[in-house]
Amino acid sequence: MKKNELYVALRRILPEDAVLIEEEDLRPYECDGLSAYRQLPMLVVLPRDVDEVQQILKLCHGLEVPVVARGTGTGLSGGALPLAEGLVLSLARLNRILDIDPVGRTARVQPGVRNLAISDAARSHGLYYAPDPSSQIACTIGGNIAENSGGVHCLKYGLTVHNVLKLEVVTVEGERLTIGGNALDSPGYDLLALMIGSEGMLGVVVEVTVRLLPVPERAQVVLAAFDDVEKAGTAVGEIIAAGIIPAGLEMMDGPAIKAAEDFVHAGYPTDAAAMLLCEVDGSNQEVSEHILAVRELMQTCSATEVRTARSEGERQRFWQGRKSAFPAVGRISPDYYCMDGTIPRHRLPEVLKRTSELSREYDLPVANVFHAGDGNMHPLILYDANNPGELERTEELGGKILELCVAVGGTITGEHGVGVEKINQMCVQFDADELEQFRALKRAFDGRQLLNPGKGVPTPRRCSEYRLLRAEKGDGNAQGVDRP
Amino acid sequence: MKKNELYVALRRILPEDAVLIEEEDLRPYECDGLSAYRQLPMLVVLPRDVDEVQQILKLCHGLEVPVVARGTGTGLSGGALPLAEGLVLSLARLNRILDIDPVGRTARVQPGVRNLAISDAARSHGLYYAPDPSSQIACTIGGNIAENSGGVHCLKYGLTVHNVLKLEVVTVEGERLTIGGNALDSPGYDLLALMIGSEGMLGVVVEVTVRLLPVPERAQVVLAAFDDVEKAGTAVGEIIAAGIIPAGLEMMDGPAIKAAEDFVHAGYPTDAAAMLLCEVDGSNQEVSEHILAVRELMQTCSATEVRTARSEGERQRFWQGRKSAFPAVGRISPDYYCMDGTIPRHRLPEVLKRTSELSREYDLPVANVFHAGDGNMHPLILYDANNPGELERTEELGGKILELCVAVGGTITGEHGVGVEKINQMCVQFDADELEQFRALKRAFDGRQLLNPGKGVPTPRRCSEYRLLRAEKGDGNAQGVDRP
Repeated sequence: MKKNELYVALRRILPEDAVLIEEEDLRPYECDGLSAYRQLPMLVVLPRDVDEVQQILKLCHGLEVPVVARGTGTGLSGGALPLAEGLVLSLARLNRILDIDPVGRTARVQPGVRNLAISDAARSHGLYYAPDPSSQIACTIGGNIAENSGGVHCLKYGLTVHNVLKLEVVTVEGERLTIGGNALDSPGYDLLALMIGSEGMLGVVVEVTVRLLPVPERAQVVLAAFDDVEKAGTAVGEIIAAGIIPAGLEMMDGPAIKAAEDFVHAGYPTDAAAMLLCEVDGSNQEVSEHILAVRELMQTCSATEVRTARSEGERQRFWQGRKSAFPAVGRISPDYYCMDGTIPRHRLPEVLKRTSELSREYDLPVANVFHAGDGNMHPLILYDANNPGELERTEELGGKILELCVAVGGTITGEHGVGVEKINQMCVQFDADELEQFRALKRAFDGRQLLNPGKGVPTPRRCSEYRLLRAEKGDGNAQGVDRP
Repeated sequence: MKKNELYVALRRILPEDAVLIEEEDLRPYECDGLSAYRQLPMLVVLPRDVDEVQQILKLCHGLEVPVVARGTGTGLSGGALPLAEGLVLSLARLNRILDIDPVGRTARVQPGVRNLAISDAARSHGLYYAPDPSSQIACTIGGNIAENSGGVHCLKYGLTVHNVLKLEVVTVEGERLTIGGNALDSPGYDLLALMIGSEGMLGVVVEVTVRLLPVPERAQVVLAAFDDVEKAGTAVGEIIAAGIIPAGLEMMDGPAIKAAEDFVHAGYPTDAAAMLLCEVDGSNQEVSEHILAVRELMQTCSATEVRTARSEGERQRFWQGRKSAFPAVGRISPDYYCMDGTIPRHRLPEVLKRTSELSREYDLPVANVFHAGDGNMHPLILYDANNPGELERTEELGGKILELCVAVGGTITGEHGVGVEKINQMCVQFDADELEQFRALKRAFDGRQLLNPGKGVPTPRRCSEYRLLRAEKGDGNAQGVDRP
């Protein structure tokens, strides 16, 4: 398909300002939050309503033009990376909050609505939307659905999939489907869960009904410092074992603490080897009991310092530091690469030890932030893309860290999705039959492979090549850890 | 395929006692809990391990023999109804609890393990498995997965899909897949949620890892009687609006109360028009606060009587009555037909009113039990299959009630699945594009349509015929309620 032909065809169904063709207009769409990968799309379209989305998809299906859907592009795995021969379908103009139902506790919104805007709109009813990715001020609910986003509070409140009730989806053929409903269960196969986290490869979400929760009566956070990462890891296990389900339970290591403190002055202990933030929420009484118990457990696990936030302002600052950890690291390094693996909680100390060995081996610093409660690690590799070969070395180190997660019984992504970033590691995570099942499922939704092709699920050929490469390097069993 | 040929082929891979062929041996498998439908299978196999399951499926795939997987056959929608030309694959001998991990709070079990046996095995660690279908003493976890079973406590703790972490599945080709994992999210499409509730149509589950929860410090239940169903409905709304998430919130109407009381002598108020059971659990303090609040709300909503269970024994009796409601109705009527629809909570009074109109119109009594908290209704139609035409009239009334649920914005199943029972109503619940997406998905797992064919998803032809039939009867808009 030639660019100009496609432009003319699109202009028959869209006004001038809804189709971008000039390079300067396309430039902002060349990458998402995984800026190591960049590609200008052929064209960008900005539909204003569901009908236009349907028409665009029908047209592209007929012409066999690939389509990459996009929210605000804050994704970290390259899920919205454009294709040179493809269209970027921006949902930015579908940004209306359609309905807040304070009795049913739901919000019906368009996909381009920002995550935080939902809670803002619900606040006057004493309600909020629970999943809170660090990018929540900017990221859209449509993108959250594509990647099944989490956040620091997902230990207690779950990921996006646990907080979405219903979707309106446009298929690659331009048909509109209603998926899910307001009841706990829906008849038929669970297309709702299937769609969530499918990275725009099965359909385009055009309307979302989310569950809202009552704002807890009180939330309080304990900060604890440790002179040793292993002790912090033990404390995490003890808190969970005590039957407390914290609203958030986060760990940062020394380099991450220092970077965050320099950036937002949260009052973090910059000499600590590890720090935990443990938030509990609920009724006044419950929070008081749990804070007491958490403080005691931290002390039993040899915390060098235990502090409870003395005010709502201090509580916000404690979290501000954690939520700013990525940009904070961005300040001290020309580039950084954020990984997203999960591990069984009890394997944390050895995974951190092996990560720092790998960091030395590759001569690249690594800062660690960690959703400790649910075993979701975010090692940040610090590098400089201007140094020849450093990006490649970074990607190789990143791949090693993810494969280390798989080796201890974990997975290659906790909440950021596979995108283009972890597509090789899918060959390590899954066997040939499992991957073939994913591909068959994709064909059931998108036989012509037009929706975000090249993301999420590797081709058999890619896996053969990657397995060969690993075998040549002798990596098959070189994670240096015991398999579970 | 001839029966004897298949028998010979199966005996090459299975011992004599693992293949049933005599009519007297096949008889117990002719129906599940939906006993209005009966069909003898060609053969029944009882494999002892995963390897045998794989061999059976490979063989049947090669010979194109349909396979219906079965647990203990307590399902209520005919999901395990055999096919005359097909095999029943009983998972009864895969009944071992493989591992309880008290730290990770998981249990790894085979599919033939009974629901309650998991909690029994976990109890010494202070843990339990939350979903509790009324049949939990008999039903298996494999069947729970097939139907995405709920129970009286699923309002707070969710359905099966919310409590299963990982599955080992054998595909129709006999390949083994690992689906899901111990982390909150898994890379790739969400096959775990897809498999749960898929009624044995996508694969055969051979191993299950479930999440275990700590047994709450305390549980307490309030019983409230009302002289009017609408007042009970209002009380349900008020409790939810007060921010209390009860562990269970159940309603029974007059006929159901009387039947249950006659059967188990739970101490129910037999002169009430409606009764609510509201259970709260958690810490001692929390339970005390919530019980007080619930009692007050019940009184505000004009309850004629409010009782808190005075002992653990009384609490158990209160629940015993509710959990025995189906067999209790079975005692007073030769046959009963249990429906399973969901509705938005606030539409309850009009749905009950319209249901009793329909009950009079069809001259068939209806008793109502209702998971009120999550809007899941279980109307029980009392009939006598020996009266000519009465089963057909019952099915027609049942269909009307389900379509009434759809008309007010609800669904045709809350937790019992579609099976053969609600397959016509799927044509009402979903439009042609939505049903076609289900079929495409089925083909992605089972191209030859061998896994439990004829269940769950209607053929296009069936829907055309059913729509025609409804149009002839003028039923299209005859639910007698306002559409949402």
